[in-house]
Amino acid sequence: MIQYTGSYTDQYQLSMALVYFRHGKADEKAIFDYFFRKLPFDGGYAVFAGLDDLIDILEELRFDDKDIGLLEEYGLPGDFLKYLKDFSFHGNIYSCLEGDIVFPTMPVLQVEANMLEAQVIETLLLNILNFQTLIATKASRMRMVAGNRKLVDFGLRRAQGPGGYYASRAAVVGGFDATSNVRTGRDYNIPISGTMAHSFIQSYDDELSAFRDFAKEHPGNCVLLVDTYDTVNTGIPNAIKTGLEMEKRGEKLKGIRLDSGDLAYLAKEARKSLDNAGLDYVKIAASNQLDEHVIKSLIDQQAPIDLFGVGTSLVIGRPDAALDGVYKLSWAFGKPRIKLSESIGKITLPHKKQVYRLVNDREEWIGADAVALEGEKDFKNIHSPFEPDKSMSIEGFKKLPFLEKVMENGKRTREKRSLEDISTYRQQKINQLPWEYKRFQNPHIYKIGISDGLKAERDKLINHYKNN
Amino acid sequence: MIQYTGSYTDQYQLSMALVYFRHGKADEKAIFDYFFRKLPFDGGYAVFAGLDDLIDILEELRFDDKDIGLLEEYGLPGDFLKYLKDFSFHGNIYSCLEGDIVFPTMPVLQVEANMLEAQVIETLLLNILNFQTLIATKASRMRMVAGNRKLVDFGLRRAQGPGGYYASRAAVVGGFDATSNVRTGRDYNIPISGTMAHSFIQSYDDELSAFRDFAKEHPGNCVLLVDTYDTVNTGIPNAIKTGLEMEKRGEKLKGIRLDSGDLAYLAKEARKSLDNAGLDYVKIAASNQLDEHVIKSLIDQQAPIDLFGVGTSLVIGRPDAALDGVYKLSWAFGKPRIKLSESIGKITLPHKKQVYRLVNDREEWIGADAVALEGEKDFKNIHSPFEPDKSMSIEGFKKLPFLEKVMENGKRTREKRSLEDISTYRQQKINQLPWEYKRFQNPHIYKIGISDGLKAERDKLINHYKNN
Repeated sequence: MIQYTGSYTDQYQLSMALVYFRHGKADEKAIFDYFFRKLPFDGGYAVFAGLDDLIDILEELRFDDKDIGLLEEYGLPGDFLKYLKDFSFHGNIYSCLEGDIVFPTMPVLQVEANMLEAQVIETLLLNILNFQTLIATKASRMRMVAGNRKLVDFGLRRAQGPGGYYASRAAVVGGFDATSNVRTGRDYNIPISGTMAHSFIQSYDDELSAFRDFAKEHPGNCVLLVDTYDTVNTGIPNAIKTGLEMEKRGEKLKGIRLDSGDLAYLAKEARKSLDNAGLDYVKIAASNQLDEHVIKSLIDQQAPIDLFGVGTSLVIGRPDAALDGVYKLSWAFGKPRIKLSESIGKITLPHKKQVYRLVNDREEWIGADAVALEGEKDFKNIHSPFEPDKSMSIEGFKKLPFLEKVMENGKRTREKRSLEDISTYRQQKINQLPWEYKRFQNPHIYKIGISDGLKAERDKLINHYKNN
Repeated sequence: MIQYTGSYTDQYQLSMALVYFRHGKADEKAIFDYFFRKLPFDGGYAVFAGLDDLIDILEELRFDDKDIGLLEEYGLPGDFLKYLKDFSFHGNIYSCLEGDIVFPTMPVLQVEANMLEAQVIETLLLNILNFQTLIATKASRMRMVAGNRKLVDFGLRRAQGPGGYYASRAAVVGGFDATSNVRTGRDYNIPISGTMAHSFIQSYDDELSAFRDFAKEHPGNCVLLVDTYDTVNTGIPNAIKTGLEMEKRGEKLKGIRLDSGDLAYLAKEARKSLDNAGLDYVKIAASNQLDEHVIKSLIDQQAPIDLFGVGTSLVIGRPDAALDGVYKLSWAFGKPRIKLSESIGKITLPHKKQVYRLVNDREEWIGADAVALEGEKDFKNIHSPFEPDKSMSIEGFKKLPFLEKVMENGKRTREKRSLEDISTYRQQKINQLPWEYKRFQNPHIYKIGISDGLKAERDKLINHYKNN
């Protein structure tokens, strides 16, 4: 539903592109790394998401006539405008896959393209990957605590405008079952789900008539909202009445929804009343300011809730609301490149690289990845990128390469997976991640080390700039 | 750039719509109020934004073939699908204007339409208004502390996906001067601005060559990023060298940008060095994790910064990241409607209403608005909607009506204003808002009272439902 064009970028990308263009550097090879520095939600891991959308968009990305018209107004020269008119992305992308478990500092994705193209797509790439990774990570935390209970995204109304469109997709990558968002459901083939609003009940003179009319029109999918007036004294009794009437017609009330009050208490009361009425098959859905912590608390209290509807905190990724992913140059014009900083934590990793997940002989993750130079396979140690004297031997561990080519010469090289397959893949990976990295309180810190070769190259470049 | 269709909604809107349709209620009049309950950023006010976009979208909103196809798959009956195929919005909208200063509880906007249309647009309306109001409010806080210094939005890369498209627009409503986001700049005629990235400097073997090439291609708009290697020892000296070379060519270096380190200290050092070199006209731009608090602190420290580039905290509206705006039924099928709640703060206001801003005889805002029944003009008191015994006489104050008709029968009735005009309007309104409501620490609470007539009607409805 979003029409991306070349102008979905920061102005400076085009200012820089002009200089490259004019100085014969537009077509020279560059490599950029996408990575982030801080895990969201004080968590121990992140779930990578957004890649398939990015690839789809990059395959089609062009500057349209309005873009060119605007840039002409801004005084960009004719030969450069002509170049942009013919622009399309011809680069290669090496990446981990959607649903992969990723960590700060490691290159999650590398773009290898001519300098101009690599620069023009930066903003778009960050805009897509940062947000979907944030939301998939948030969703995965709720999936962890929810076990096999249903999780449904209800967030579109509180989303950051059309950000909600992708939030509903990323939620499924992270483990949600369905969405209330019809448009995203339509475009990504996600199950669509929903109940009724308070306004529906309010529009009737009494609650029971509203329930009855709804049940008549939705005999196979009737979930009644029971808190418009008084959950215990009218809502649940009226829902039971409706459910029993449905039984007489050979239909089954699907569920009730609690949307306010003490959800644990009300769910228990509702369960009892429903069961006493013989409606033990009726499910209980709950919503209202849920997040992973509230869901966990409700489950810890043994609240008999079958479905959680989650809105705001899911679709905006509360409380962080942004992932700090960056896109840093590691190779240009035939040389490795580095960005220095007074803080060693912000010094980048030069060169084209590969990331290896380290596993023991039972294929279990050991809690460390290695970032190495491309082709460097026989390194024996990994080194902290931030604390120069810290290193560890990795002998005896297997190295599983992590980044694979997903785009070549501007075209997708890996078959697109369904969201369902991606979600299954994420669940497999989450299962492989040791528990210490998954817990909410003070999770272990997963180690990202750099190889012997990468460390040597990085030190050389740091010294070069420090001595100049 | 966003193609909204009828499916940009929550599934339950369509489930409810089907019931209304089948029971002959689809075309009966309903009134919904848009309002929010909590001010963002612990602030004392909010800036309303997003209305013009909403009107544009509603004028064109239709279910397209793919929407209808999906709903058919979901089993919606043929006569209802036909109704949706012919759907367009025919309602009236009464609203305050973009740039108006608004507060919790007051109806900011009312939709008067047939029940089905009013319900179908709910999600879209909330999605647009909640987000843009959040961002315009955030931006206005930065504008307040920045005085007449330039404020530029740099946030697209960290925005919540395409939410960034509207964030850049709402930032201008709130008082920003320009954006780096080319696409939004193009579509909304916002000045586009930008400098250069670290990668540009890194791609050269030395900083000075990078500065020189950039200056050559951008002689009229050259802002040099000085912190890639060492701000004080290389960045600023190289920028000065470049600036002096530009002078010899009859050009002028426009500015430098600081993007890390102690911005107050570095700005002072940079100012001194530039002035000493005769480059007193060169502006200093600063960026890096700015928000209204950091900007205020920099200005309090007298940092000689001319332009602030603000990213993440602006475009995601940190820390709240969502406005809790809701859409509640106040009239349906010939009767006033109310939603009860155990918390009196969540009981809604029935009936079609008008909001009056109360001013004294010098036209100064007194810090209170009145919500009254439509047509009720002679009320003498306002009452707290939350504390039944609290009321205040408003005799002697003038009542300025606040909501005006902006859409009639699905068409815009009020001429669209430019973003520049909206921003000017917002500034006028902010100037009228007394200081106590604008300060960041413990701002005064602006009072929203309900009229004698509205209180009587609301009490009557509450009693009706309590006794049934």
